[in-house]
Amino acid sequence: VDQAAMLRARERQAQLTKPAGALGDLEELSIRLAGIFGSEKPHPQGVAVIVAAGDHGVAQDGVSAYPPEVTPMMVMNFLSDTPGGAGGAAVNAIARSVGASVYVMDAGVNAELPAHPRLHRHALRRGTRNLRTEAAMTRQETETLILAGAALARQALQDGADILIPGEMGIGNTTPAAAVTARLLALDPARVTGRGTGVDDAKLTHKVQVVREALGRTPANDPLEVLAEFGGYELAAMLGVMLQAAASGKAIILDGFVEGSAALVGVALNPALKDYLLPAGECAEIGHAAQLQALGLRPMFHLGLRLGEGTGGVLAAPLVLAAAATLREMQTFAEAGVPGA
Amino acid sequence: VDQAAMLRARERQAQLTKPAGALGDLEELSIRLAGIFGSEKPHPQGVAVIVAAGDHGVAQDGVSAYPPEVTPMMVMNFLSDTPGGAGGAAVNAIARSVGASVYVMDAGVNAELPAHPRLHRHALRRGTRNLRTEAAMTRQETETLILAGAALARQALQDGADILIPGEMGIGNTTPAAAVTARLLALDPARVTGRGTGVDDAKLTHKVQVVREALGRTPANDPLEVLAEFGGYELAAMLGVMLQAAASGKAIILDGFVEGSAALVGVALNPALKDYLLPAGECAEIGHAAQLQALGLRPMFHLGLRLGEGTGGVLAAPLVLAAAATLREMQTFAEAGVPGA
Repeated sequence: VDQAAMLRARERQAQLTKPAGALGDLEELSIRLAGIFGSEKPHPQGVAVIVAAGDHGVAQDGVSAYPPEVTPMMVMNFLSDTPGGAGGAAVNAIARSVGASVYVMDAGVNAELPAHPRLHRHALRRGTRNLRTEAAMTRQETETLILAGAALARQALQDGADILIPGEMGIGNTTPAAAVTARLLALDPARVTGRGTGVDDAKLTHKVQVVREALGRTPANDPLEVLAEFGGYELAAMLGVMLQAAASGKAIILDGFVEGSAALVGVALNPALKDYLLPAGECAEIGHAAQLQALGLRPMFHLGLRLGEGTGGVLAAPLVLAAAATLREMQTFAEAGVPGA
Repeated sequence: VDQAAMLRARERQAQLTKPAGALGDLEELSIRLAGIFGSEKPHPQGVAVIVAAGDHGVAQDGVSAYPPEVTPMMVMNFLSDTPGGAGGAAVNAIARSVGASVYVMDAGVNAELPAHPRLHRHALRRGTRNLRTEAAMTRQETETLILAGAALARQALQDGADILIPGEMGIGNTTPAAAVTARLLALDPARVTGRGTGVDDAKLTHKVQVVREALGRTPANDPLEVLAEFGGYELAAMLGVMLQAAASGKAIILDGFVEGSAALVGVALNPALKDYLLPAGECAEIGHAAQLQALGLRPMFHLGLRLGEGTGGVLAAPLVLAAAATLREMQTFAEAGVPGA
């Protein structure tokens, strides 16, 4: 990122017509945007959320409140024509509301999805292997999905977005996210394994045990190996989205626990990715706080979201755009002829 | 509000294609919008912030980090033509970013402000009397400013807004806000008197003493009498905005400590106002939390804002619109053909 632009932005923030620090966390956010966009008056042009969907072999172990058949049905929901517009899921409604574009990727759903002009099909396999008993993905599959995510990110950038939000759909995917997070942050599975879409106490205990068993299977701690062993296709695709955004000098809004686990892999591969990650909310999933701390992100809102799909990131987009607007469009005390404190 | 619409909205939220409760606080927010707009598919059409500015006799006691001359200069800043658009203050930049309209009112600024097509002039006096030693406003002035706020709210509604945000500018106005809040909530001044734009420890101690002296002057506790004794012109105008919005069945986003003190007066006058108040963030000012608790509002974000101008409310607007969009545009499990949990 552009350190000189950040310095100019910091000076400018201090001169804007408001009490020093009165914009709170938006000030630091605006300075980070200045660094990413290389200007003390950052002007982001478009927001896109890329929702990657995948299924998980571990779902057959009963780690979710929902049956795996829901994954392909939700993908069809993302794509459906509704009275409100394209897509009838939360991410579609919220994205329309804030003016963000939605890209949908089949990263490895357990169904033969019909061709659809808005569906980007990159599935290599109908869901991962069961991470409890074997590597979820091969190294080759992992890399292919990372590249697929990067390619879709490039398309979104070409279409005009410069703020990208990785999102996901995949019944059972808080289990791989917990396993990846536990291994990369060296935390006990019980500390990062949560209720996901809403499992009860008995299922949660079982889910922790599944993660523990998976981690006991292999001492792998190379980031890509961790992703292949414990991750999932949509995690790999989201990692590709983030690496491409950072490589292209664009901003990323990071929302959610599953997204966070992919970000942990990314930052382990390339610490500079951190500079491009902007916070959204704190999700209700246990383990998210540990991810945010490791990534150096302070959540902006606490709405108790636990939906995934990138919804929290899309909700955060107007706050990010507003932070940039303060730096770009507010007058300084000198410009406005107002005496400072 | 329309209880039947709220009931239908609650049922609809439970059937939308997401895990139950996964949209967190946005779900309750969407149900409240259904009540206000009388539809289980609420569709707000426009957002307007009404910024009322006024000066305060108590400012001569040195209760602010800024000189009172800043108030009229900031009003001119709200109105100025800048490269980014109309107005160079934080509220202007953020409102442009989220697509909200800005209305500016001179409610009683200590300067002869020039006529300007975007300035609504309702000043009766160049600032209030010093609330420490006498009633800040007469009863008649108070009522006139309430009506002026209501009239400007009606104009904003006629112009197409159906979500109104009261905002304010007035050097020294966290002192009247603290006095009003302390009296109406029966709290000690030290618990609700904060640093405002950033006074130091010595000035804060002095400010608490000023509030204490004012409250000791009179046992007034009739809501309008409290407002006249301890309030200010912009507080009265904001009260008028809120009462009109509620009377017209429109939503109000409540941001900030000074705004909150006006809302406390409003709810004391008419408890039904509560039903139309939606939360924004928690501001850094001590005493805001007590107001929110009294008003039954849970803040959506914690960004450490302490700017006023209605900025937090404008930042919250996209979250409010997104909450409505989920109820209006998401498909139910049945509509999408997805099996529920």
